[in-house]
Amino acid sequence: MINNLLFDIDDTLFPSSEFAALARRNAVRAMIRMGLYATEDELLEILNKIIEEKGSNYPRHFDLLLKRMKERKIENPARFVAAATGAYHDTKAAIQPYPDVPSTLLEMKELGYRLYVATNGISVKQWDKLIRLGVALYFDEVFVSDELGIKKGPAFFRYVLKKIKAEPKECVMIGDREDTDILPAKAVGLYTIRIMRGKYSTGPSKADVVLPDFKGLISNVLNLSR
Amino acid sequence: MINNLLFDIDDTLFPSSEFAALARRNAVRAMIRMGLYATEDELLEILNKIIEEKGSNYPRHFDLLLKRMKERKIENPARFVAAATGAYHDTKAAIQPYPDVPSTLLEMKELGYRLYVATNGISVKQWDKLIRLGVALYFDEVFVSDELGIKKGPAFFRYVLKKIKAEPKECVMIGDREDTDILPAKAVGLYTIRIMRGKYSTGPSKADVVLPDFKGLISNVLNLSR
Repeated sequence: MINNLLFDIDDTLFPSSEFAALARRNAVRAMIRMGLYATEDELLEILNKIIEEKGSNYPRHFDLLLKRMKERKIENPARFVAAATGAYHDTKAAIQPYPDVPSTLLEMKELGYRLYVATNGISVKQWDKLIRLGVALYFDEVFVSDELGIKKGPAFFRYVLKKIKAEPKECVMIGDREDTDILPAKAVGLYTIRIMRGKYSTGPSKADVVLPDFKGLISNVLNLSR
Repeated sequence: MINNLLFDIDDTLFPSSEFAALARRNAVRAMIRMGLYATEDELLEILNKIIEEKGSNYPRHFDLLLKRMKERKIENPARFVAAATGAYHDTKAAIQPYPDVPSTLLEMKELGYRLYVATNGISVKQWDKLIRLGVALYFDEVFVSDELGIKKGPAFFRYVLKKIKAEPKECVMIGDREDTDILPAKAVGLYTIRIMRGKYSTGPSKADVVLPDFKGLISNVLNLSR
């Protein structure tokens, strides 16, 4: 019997890709508003390249962006870094869940399921998202890769099963990504449901169920139990 | 003739001490809301001691706070650190200038004064404050100690005079602190006006003028010129 539901966060509980894109755009707009002589598209192109190279958790995106504007030596970068960082964090602070998420989580709790988070990332950042989305306290436990020292793969899911004292077939992993949510959970024997949201929502899936959003989630979990 | 006005930021342009106290209080409240078993006053006492020891720019206040709750070992600190950090930054993001500041700065600009910031601190943080207060673009230049590598003292003010190409008696330093605003600026020969706001607003002053707020500021600057 299924009684444990594991959720990914980014692009599963909230439109992470959309907010990240908007945060970057707002950051470069704020730099321009502070007097940086450049176009939005030009700055975004450099910034996106930096994020591609350094990853999204690199802490000096905007310093590097200003250094890369070679033709124009920026004498006082602090004002632009401050403007960009402020606008970026303000946008990220305003994240909202997909509208079908809070009610679905609440209903699942009321049906007696135990809810967990299983996510890659930095613990404090992932917790910050859960708190800002207003869903942190729905979850019985939160498993974040950097706290466990294991990236989301089969070993991660084996660790989670042991911690929550559950058999694979008592669990469903619900996430948007084939590579980090569906395939490794399936390899360990969990049921899997793929939610086709966000920038990774393309391509075929080996998940037991594929859904566009959370609307049919509960009835599909009930079906898997039969 | 006086045509350069230098301003401190914290407790001169906005109630920095008040917001800092509120940010700390909101941070510990957010930890309690996330399920930390402790009282607000107990947590604030530990936090204030940490800030006293480590300074306000130490980046791991909340981790250390949780480590110091010895009787209760905190198993998963990330949720509490995330809650505290989020609430702290949200409070600091909501800073507002003292109500008499924006109109006074605008009027001074219109009268033809050149306005400068002369402040201790970390450049990006000080710029973030100016931007959030909505006054960043009033200033012709912003001098921050960490960018110059000189703490606010006589050498700092001599550097500023050189950069803005002004004689001491063409300048007024306006700030709340006797030790970092008034005495060193006076030592270099600038006029000084002390604003008695915030937690440093006690004790006698050697400033040319002492004011409770910005209301009489312009007429006093005009008087000094005569």
